[in-house]
Amino acid sequence: MRLGTVRVGDGARLAAVERDGRWHALDVPAGTALEAVLAAGPQETLRAARGAVGPLPDAVPVAPLRPGKIVAIGLNYLDHIREAGMDKPARPLMFAKFPSSVIGPGDPIVIDGELAERVDWEVELAAVIGTPLRHAGPAQALAGVAGYTVANDVSARDLQFADGQWTRGKSLDTFCPLGPVIVTPDELGDPQALRLRTVVNGETVQDSTTAEMLFGVAELLAFCSRSFTLEPGDVVLTGTPWGCGEFMDPPRSLHPGDVVEVSIEGIGGLRNPVVAAGTMR
Amino acid sequence: MRLGTVRVGDGARLAAVERDGRWHALDVPAGTALEAVLAAGPQETLRAARGAVGPLPDAVPVAPLRPGKIVAIGLNYLDHIREAGMDKPARPLMFAKFPSSVIGPGDPIVIDGELAERVDWEVELAAVIGTPLRHAGPAQALAGVAGYTVANDVSARDLQFADGQWTRGKSLDTFCPLGPVIVTPDELGDPQALRLRTVVNGETVQDSTTAEMLFGVAELLAFCSRSFTLEPGDVVLTGTPWGCGEFMDPPRSLHPGDVVEVSIEGIGGLRNPVVAAGTMR
Repeated sequence: MRLGTVRVGDGARLAAVERDGRWHALDVPAGTALEAVLAAGPQETLRAARGAVGPLPDAVPVAPLRPGKIVAIGLNYLDHIREAGMDKPARPLMFAKFPSSVIGPGDPIVIDGELAERVDWEVELAAVIGTPLRHAGPAQALAGVAGYTVANDVSARDLQFADGQWTRGKSLDTFCPLGPVIVTPDELGDPQALRLRTVVNGETVQDSTTAEMLFGVAELLAFCSRSFTLEPGDVVLTGTPWGCGEFMDPPRSLHPGDVVEVSIEGIGGLRNPVVAAGTMR
Repeated sequence: MRLGTVRVGDGARLAAVERDGRWHALDVPAGTALEAVLAAGPQETLRAARGAVGPLPDAVPVAPLRPGKIVAIGLNYLDHIREAGMDKPARPLMFAKFPSSVIGPGDPIVIDGELAERVDWEVELAAVIGTPLRHAGPAQALAGVAGYTVANDVSARDLQFADGQWTRGKSLDTFCPLGPVIVTPDELGDPQALRLRTVVNGETVQDSTTAEMLFGVAELLAFCSRSFTLEPGDVVLTGTPWGCGEFMDPPRSLHPGDVVEVSIEGIGGLRNPVVAAGTMR
């Protein structure tokens, strides 16, 4: 199943992409958040999708949900660890992105040049939690995933490295493009065998596979749940592969006028233009 | 005004502490979250409080709200910077605590000895956001505060320092006691002239004043809002003064059986017992 949130006229509706390739509204009351449907379990999600009414004309996908928290993992791809010249972390390297950074497909990534100049891309597989997970083993943790989506873990490298703590440089408004759909695990298949890519202005800059992960999704979620509760609607970003601009020679970054596309096999992609802050205010 | 959330029988109600010193339910529909009332503005909060019905017998205060995000600031008290032997930060040092770490008055702080052994206390003044703040100056930022409460920024020093990124060691479940009430700015007065204390097993270990802050509340909120939107229901923790266990000689930490109390003048205090993880499962 492929679930999401769409804008129809002035309102937002939960919807599923059906076999006809079009968005159909889920059979849930208006105002229901996607995490509530996911938390009710796969059977309820299926029921809501099966009850879907006719296709929604002019539906525009937006960010599929506002996560309760975003747990992010650094240095988790072997090819990225090599390019960064770092040692393999002994355990997952965890940091946070604030949920206020989330935007959807097509929304602009806004760069405030007075605040940050070295803004980088990071395509990431995002696991959306459906079942509360606490002290979960790897298999149980994987079974608690409601579905997977695509994230761009946009990063202000100057702020990230100057602060030492990465939270601020990772959490600027618009720095977490998320979507376009959440694909249920039964439809997606093995999360450790997916090609993922970033394309900037038509040029491929990241092109790898989730098989390169040092800690797989199951291990990451189990690790998180050892420390705190993963709740329905939480999102775990699982790290990015080689090809970030920061580690290129010379280093590259995003600038107003650029267009950045992140995509993952079996899910789809996000395309976001980059604009300067002044043009938005 | 002194606002909070109380447990009455099986349910939770928004309530205010009235002149008689007792909790009175606010005049809002059941299920209304405190951040929604706060976001509606001071007049609506006042209306809801004025419409309060008779006192609630057997009301037990719980955490006043589940923050949308918790922004935390490190090394922000001059006396704490001196005891840590650190340089003054040139700008606020920001990190995150996940909202799933929040507990209320009386709730146990749970230590999982297999995960963390050096668990420390940190009393902090917590600003609760009422009005969205983005690119706010200091005065505007201060006007966006719905009220203030008390937080204990419980910290697993071993995880914090081993990880480098502080998120995990600061975000273990139960590591953010918050409450007991949110005091509106008009009632609290100057947020930079409040005595704050931590008492462990009856012994005072932190005793300072918010006048020791390097960056005051107004500056901190303006700094945050320069990077991202502070939203109604977000909570900003403003740092802790001298007296953490980690910097004592020899270092001290919390252990099962301890009782830790944090309090701030004009707001009140939180008293939380410390228990071992195994006793809770």
